[in-house]
Amino acid sequence: MSISRSFISINGVVGAQLSPLDRGFAYGDGLFETCRVIAHQVPLWHLHEERLAEGCRRLGIPLDSARLKRYLFDLLQIAGQADGVVKVIVTRGAGGRGYRQPELIEPSYRVAVFPAAEPTAHSSGIAVRVCQQRLALNPALAGIKHLNRLEQVLARAEWQDEQIAEGLLRDAAGNVIEATASNLMIICQGELRTPDLSCAGVAGVMRRLIIERLAARVGLRVRVVSMTLEDIYQAEEVFVCNSINGIWPVVKLVDEKTVAYPVGPHTLSLQNALAEEYLQGSDLLAGEQL
Amino acid sequence: MSISRSFISINGVVGAQLSPLDRGFAYGDGLFETCRVIAHQVPLWHLHEERLAEGCRRLGIPLDSARLKRYLFDLLQIAGQADGVVKVIVTRGAGGRGYRQPELIEPSYRVAVFPAAEPTAHSSGIAVRVCQQRLALNPALAGIKHLNRLEQVLARAEWQDEQIAEGLLRDAAGNVIEATASNLMIICQGELRTPDLSCAGVAGVMRRLIIERLAARVGLRVRVVSMTLEDIYQAEEVFVCNSINGIWPVVKLVDEKTVAYPVGPHTLSLQNALAEEYLQGSDLLAGEQL
Repeated sequence: MSISRSFISINGVVGAQLSPLDRGFAYGDGLFETCRVIAHQVPLWHLHEERLAEGCRRLGIPLDSARLKRYLFDLLQIAGQADGVVKVIVTRGAGGRGYRQPELIEPSYRVAVFPAAEPTAHSSGIAVRVCQQRLALNPALAGIKHLNRLEQVLARAEWQDEQIAEGLLRDAAGNVIEATASNLMIICQGELRTPDLSCAGVAGVMRRLIIERLAARVGLRVRVVSMTLEDIYQAEEVFVCNSINGIWPVVKLVDEKTVAYPVGPHTLSLQNALAEEYLQGSDLLAGEQL
Repeated sequence: MSISRSFISINGVVGAQLSPLDRGFAYGDGLFETCRVIAHQVPLWHLHEERLAEGCRRLGIPLDSARLKRYLFDLLQIAGQADGVVKVIVTRGAGGRGYRQPELIEPSYRVAVFPAAEPTAHSSGIAVRVCQQRLALNPALAGIKHLNRLEQVLARAEWQDEQIAEGLLRDAAGNVIEATASNLMIICQGELRTPDLSCAGVAGVMRRLIIERLAARVGLRVRVVSMTLEDIYQAEEVFVCNSINGIWPVVKLVDEKTVAYPVGPHTLSLQNALAEEYLQGSDLLAGEQL
């Protein structure tokens, strides 16, 4: 049974509202994680927690991981259902006027449990487009999942066509970095290639799982590269990935020209490896049993 | 008498809290204005309103200016005091999970009235430093006062020294763009120069007033230029400006080397022109009498 409506807590209080002085609201001064809930567990929680901790370290927000985990699992218990999506936002908390942070930072923890995402086209694949909106280069903010997301909002506002599931984003120099809400991977000359994210983009949890674990299991060499649209045109297989949707084969790229791709053998192998990973509940995936 | 404590309204309701699903909180999906209140008026409101309207147009947020103005002046009346600072935040309102905007956008309007800023060093001048944090280049977001402000938060976190009032921000290419919360202007060869903001930075209301009105009144030619640190080292006079503090002479620049500047005659003339502008209550400055 999926979670049928949303439940939200602020600092552990279900149904609470947010301070209008929260710096998440004023400046996007915080971070978030969006995680899949399967069988009452958040199987990739340890990876989400690691990225969140890294983001808090970079922004100087004192994260209390144990407290957040308690709020998270309390709310999942209240929501009471097996499958869905949980989104966590951690901010620098309330502050006065001005960019300067308060001497005593008391982070805000917002947890929201949503119904499971719509069924996705895992077997038939999706169509993606190329967005006009570019990603600015900012090494200090690259990789982490911070709350400054106007570029993604503007990119996602470029299309309404329900047949297009994702949009690819390039940086100012024209390199393809990611999709609006997922990471991009291609198979090229039999190896797995994915864009370098050191100056822009979000280093996704599913991307990390594939790079560090699943690729080796299916015998794929991985290379993190600079990637142009031309590289994607020429690719043998293309897919996007994130924590919620897993691995989405791309079967059509709509740009100045339209390119078709098969749902290829390597993509299928990775999908199978991911399904096994979830079944096994291995160390990287060990969620907390409620 | 200055405003002695803060008053806040959300969508016109004083003391209301914010929806934890607000997209301002989730993505920084909105804009803000910080305005000075003088003698129960917001003298530069029309300029703030114009910038806010332009920002909303660029982000696709349907601004109801009349509604916002009503909330603003209602709250000023409740706060009941003559001088202070009012900060307005307008966001795309509440939304579900994901970057895609809701079909029906109902913006959130947060208004907050704060006590007057601390007395500033208008006559003696301030010291500024050069920040390590760089501004990313993003023409789609440059100029407007959106809520994605992590670059400014990180820059302002670089120093604690109370003797340093502001920090200069460069873009990735090394051009100086602005200070963390104010715009930068220099006098060079007898003309007023200020950085081009077409790829980064916030086009300040005070900057606009100076460029469009005050500079001509004191006989200064204005040029919008690319500006390096070397240009600032060589400048005859340097000042920063914003709506709250007006025109702040810079008397010391702390970088690899320390440079001293006088509070020069052009800066003083502009300060006088600004004071006259406030006294006159001319068309650009016509606030609404409560």
